[in-house]
Amino acid sequence: MNQSIIKTIAFDADDTLWINETFFRDAEDQFCALLEDYLPYEECHKRLFEMEMRNLPLYGYGIKPFGLSLIEASIEITDGEVSIEIIQELIAMAKAMLDAPVQLMEGIEGVLDTLSQKYRLVVATKGDLLDQERKLEKSGLAKYFHHIEVMSDKQPKNYMKLVNHLDIAPESFFMVGNSLKSDILPVLEIGGNAIHIPFHTTWVHEQIDYEVVHDNFQAFEKVDDILNVL
Amino acid sequence: MNQSIIKTIAFDADDTLWINETFFRDAEDQFCALLEDYLPYEECHKRLFEMEMRNLPLYGYGIKPFGLSLIEASIEITDGEVSIEIIQELIAMAKAMLDAPVQLMEGIEGVLDTLSQKYRLVVATKGDLLDQERKLEKSGLAKYFHHIEVMSDKQPKNYMKLVNHLDIAPESFFMVGNSLKSDILPVLEIGGNAIHIPFHTTWVHEQIDYEVVHDNFQAFEKVDDILNVL
Repeated sequence: MNQSIIKTIAFDADDTLWINETFFRDAEDQFCALLEDYLPYEECHKRLFEMEMRNLPLYGYGIKPFGLSLIEASIEITDGEVSIEIIQELIAMAKAMLDAPVQLMEGIEGVLDTLSQKYRLVVATKGDLLDQERKLEKSGLAKYFHHIEVMSDKQPKNYMKLVNHLDIAPESFFMVGNSLKSDILPVLEIGGNAIHIPFHTTWVHEQIDYEVVHDNFQAFEKVDDILNVL
Repeated sequence: MNQSIIKTIAFDADDTLWINETFFRDAEDQFCALLEDYLPYEECHKRLFEMEMRNLPLYGYGIKPFGLSLIEASIEITDGEVSIEIIQELIAMAKAMLDAPVQLMEGIEGVLDTLSQKYRLVVATKGDLLDQERKLEKSGLAKYFHHIEVMSDKQPKNYMKLVNHLDIAPESFFMVGNSLKSDILPVLEIGGNAIHIPFHTTWVHEQIDYEVVHDNFQAFEKVDDILNVL
């Protein structure tokens, strides 16, 4: 990689800086346990995912959309038989997720410390502004970043807007993230550079079933490995 | 006002560019009509507002927080007796609000058209990124703005961040909005300039009970009036 042209390195937040997907998986498991009298586990997961996908265009990403979808799915799955106590538990689950402590990804702080001395770093995340700002604050990582960019989605056009906003050319833009679909492919499409650091759990919605091969792309096992190329 | 120092004019979005508060008031009325068997209208409004305030630090602003608070308040107000049908109606209300057509404030487009030829204009709003981006898109006003800044809150520190981000001094920053509490006072506090255009309905949470007098402050009845000073 041609390091001299790098002006800004953007880090995805959830499952790149800190653990996130695990909280959603746990909440889905709790949800299906609450509704086990109505539907087997597998089918319940499927129905919840369908509800989330149906609501995604209107709600967007994040915990509050997830909470609203949990409630709506519980009503649909039980044909309106769900108890108010269960709905209360679902609200409490969403609140607990919003209030959860931030668990940093292993090795991330050292990497940010090193890179922030050489490059301008930003956080580029989709989801909820308040929630992501709060997590960045709690994480103790805010000091390494110039600022946080919360995007409503991670389509190529959103990255184009981000790059224009950062006042740099796409080829000077570097993205580090765990989702091939959201952090890598759209960035390569606009002519940027991308590094993939997988997380052990990936939301079905973020999964792609082919291999990425591109001159501007590299994949590493651990975040520390990126210091070899940046 | 010293026009030569103005670098950027920021417009609040809800109830400055387009009507918003009216949709929330209507939804609150619907909510209290659904629960009229349990609580008189006035008391119902009060209890809902209390629930919103309790959830505000965790949820932030916007329609999705409002929807979650509607559901939680319906359970609390009815002591868990609320029917699933009512909860379904509350979810449908929140969805209808997210999907509502955008109604521009009278005269706003002409003002933006004129000002955008002389100044850099941005939207500075709190609330939900996806929702505000969607409204800006639907409104047809996007072409007048350099970009949209969605803030998690409108405290002085958030405006300081915005002004730094815009790369200008606070005295070159101009804010136009309908809320004295959110759009005017914090901007004056950081040394910026502010113009107040009241909207007929103001959320209780945004109300202040004293008059604002400040060198950098002006108030107008209609948005067109600002063309006399800018």
